[in-house]
Amino acid sequence: MFSFAYLHGCCLRALKVLILVFELADMDKGILLILDGLGDLPNKGGQTPLSAAKTPNMDKMAREGILAMLAPLGKGNVPGSDTSHLTLLGYPYWDYYCGRGPLEALGSGIKLKEGDVAFRANFATVKNGRVVERRAGRIPTSFARKLEKLVSKIKVRGATVLFKSTVEHRGVLILRGKGLGSGVSDTDPHGHLSVLSSHALKKTAANEKTARILNEFTKKAMQALAKAPENKGRKLPANAILCRGAGSYRKVEPFFKKHGVTGACVAGGALYKGVASYIGMDVLHVPGATGSKDTNLKSKGKHAVAALKNHDFVFVHVKATDSCAHDGDYECKKKVIERVDKELVPMLRKTGANIIITGDHTTACSTGKHTGHDVPMLCWGKGFRRDRCKKFSEDACMEGGIGHVDGWDLFPVMLNSMGKGKMVGT
Amino acid sequence: MFSFAYLHGCCLRALKVLILVFELADMDKGILLILDGLGDLPNKGGQTPLSAAKTPNMDKMAREGILAMLAPLGKGNVPGSDTSHLTLLGYPYWDYYCGRGPLEALGSGIKLKEGDVAFRANFATVKNGRVVERRAGRIPTSFARKLEKLVSKIKVRGATVLFKSTVEHRGVLILRGKGLGSGVSDTDPHGHLSVLSSHALKKTAANEKTARILNEFTKKAMQALAKAPENKGRKLPANAILCRGAGSYRKVEPFFKKHGVTGACVAGGALYKGVASYIGMDVLHVPGATGSKDTNLKSKGKHAVAALKNHDFVFVHVKATDSCAHDGDYECKKKVIERVDKELVPMLRKTGANIIITGDHTTACSTGKHTGHDVPMLCWGKGFRRDRCKKFSEDACMEGGIGHVDGWDLFPVMLNSMGKGKMVGT
Repeated sequence: MFSFAYLHGCCLRALKVLILVFELADMDKGILLILDGLGDLPNKGGQTPLSAAKTPNMDKMAREGILAMLAPLGKGNVPGSDTSHLTLLGYPYWDYYCGRGPLEALGSGIKLKEGDVAFRANFATVKNGRVVERRAGRIPTSFARKLEKLVSKIKVRGATVLFKSTVEHRGVLILRGKGLGSGVSDTDPHGHLSVLSSHALKKTAANEKTARILNEFTKKAMQALAKAPENKGRKLPANAILCRGAGSYRKVEPFFKKHGVTGACVAGGALYKGVASYIGMDVLHVPGATGSKDTNLKSKGKHAVAALKNHDFVFVHVKATDSCAHDGDYECKKKVIERVDKELVPMLRKTGANIIITGDHTTACSTGKHTGHDVPMLCWGKGFRRDRCKKFSEDACMEGGIGHVDGWDLFPVMLNSMGKGKMVGT
Repeated sequence: MFSFAYLHGCCLRALKVLILVFELADMDKGILLILDGLGDLPNKGGQTPLSAAKTPNMDKMAREGILAMLAPLGKGNVPGSDTSHLTLLGYPYWDYYCGRGPLEALGSGIKLKEGDVAFRANFATVKNGRVVERRAGRIPTSFARKLEKLVSKIKVRGATVLFKSTVEHRGVLILRGKGLGSGVSDTDPHGHLSVLSSHALKKTAANEKTARILNEFTKKAMQALAKAPENKGRKLPANAILCRGAGSYRKVEPFFKKHGVTGACVAGGALYKGVASYIGMDVLHVPGATGSKDTNLKSKGKHAVAALKNHDFVFVHVKATDSCAHDGDYECKKKVIERVDKELVPMLRKTGANIIITGDHTTACSTGKHTGHDVPMLCWGKGFRRDRCKKFSEDACMEGGIGHVDGWDLFPVMLNSMGKGKMVGT
């Protein structure tokens, strides 16, 4: 007969083994949480949205983990979201950047073919020949979908046109056909000027063909949108499409082959899903992940946790921090950070995975623009050392134990924490 | 007549000049002491072998000197010992790495010819077709020497075979002949699997020739070792040779020409002597320097001090820290560090040379593997500033005054401390 004490001992041992297995299973996983445009400059009171925000969960992780300062594209350089995300995910932009267009297209679910030329597009408001609002008052996605149907009917000579609206005023234009180049200028004037005529940046037949087709499309789109019943009575009619970020699509070495780990993406914005898709990560469908301020953080957390069951690495993206900063809204950015700390971070922490929380660049509320200032970075988990920092903020990160990290170092640091770094040499 | 007081004054002045000359002579010298795999991760008590070890001498130097954190191959990247040492000695691996084989061969005293293809080799134990022990139970060097004689008799078609045992189970295989390539896979399965058949990594006639010869050698070595009387009755017979790290030897710019200083190497392990030999340093014969845990640190110290008389720079290597960590033996690693602090460091310090003490990578006792975590680095001497750090440990180095240093920056920092840095520009 077995005594109770013996059985109790067995159970305890089994439990310990189970805990160990659980620990081992999760200590080699990784999560990268990007709060877009997280970094900021201090206001008159000396506070940034991150330093002012009440973030007890991230502060606890700062005490238990180690901080760093991140220069996504190297010190002082002002990162775009596309180049920065590529670089942070281990695909340095100087080798892998293909222009914003293809990334937005892939992110909106369009399957691209090698040679397709894609553009990031905006619905905009033009009055008296000048762009008066580059985002047509941030039209709702549902409204943009209606206009998409209209625009999709446009035909041009020499290529097939595919147009798709993504989130709010954003969309993508793809030109598919033979002999198209991507070395063409934007039609988006990036300010309150006339819609520009695209031209070949380098005079080749392929670039000139693309510029001609883009100009034809732009003209026809304005004609079609001017007549659209949806725009009637609107103060800021969405009566033009501005294109920028031309790029030719090409296949790159897939994520698992390059890094030796499987990866999943939890994001709302098309660009971020596009980056993930371009590099061969699994892009999850996350209901409620809108890429806007109303995004469902709990749904994102739930899907990230689930994805970690059958992936080594999960990239989670929150856009709203950046959107608030672009609008110059300090309080809004602060509140988004507090929401992330309350609703999303605890779910990710519970997985026991190694976690890096950072941004893709600084977006200063004071100017509403990206800047090249360093971005605060928090590292937490069994694969990281610990420093003496007590809070997650720009100031604390200046003294972080990992020091100053360039963007292309982030993914090696992530992989190393997961015990999945490849040895260089023997 | 000269008074006694006058003579006394003259003697004192002469003594002061002598002391100054001695000081000047030594302030432009440099010592790099590498404790292999020095860095570690904290145990449950929050201590690493270095932070837990009693190191009064290095701690004093930390108080008098300045600390840094070293990322030998850049942040997060997991360094091999070969690539890391090359880089730390001012030969960045991306330009100078020639594979581990040639480095081990050079380190074991074999003179290579341009075009030789060399491999790092292990005596191993194979049972029922599977590798059961990759190191044949870490056979003693004397035992391996006997097997070497047997293996040396092996002949293959198309090349000359040279085999040499180095330390314990380690050895090198050199193939010499025309038209040999080094782009071939290992026969070492790096685990408990069958001995692998080598193949060309890129299909060229040269690579295919090398793979065929390596496979023939591997088969013949197993046949010869199976019959060896030395293996009779051994629980773990050394009955196979596993090869890895193929590389072609080529000459590189010698140390003095590249750096403008003369250099000597004090090491036991073949790889480290090989790196030094490859880059044209003088490799000293140091009795008792075994590259094992039983190495004679005082002998190393004595030879390093002597070498400094007629060299500007001495590289001193201690392997045992890494060996302990690979065996998962925290206490052993801690004790080696304490021995180094007691037996070796004071001898080096007395020379008055500028000293850097660091590691080539982190080897975590918890996993027994190299990791990409930063490595603590201590700089001491007249050519260095001073910071406020009080102890030599990972934690203290996170706050070191030199900050975070990439491996390729170490040698410029060393040369600069010696006043021997080359000006870039005018």
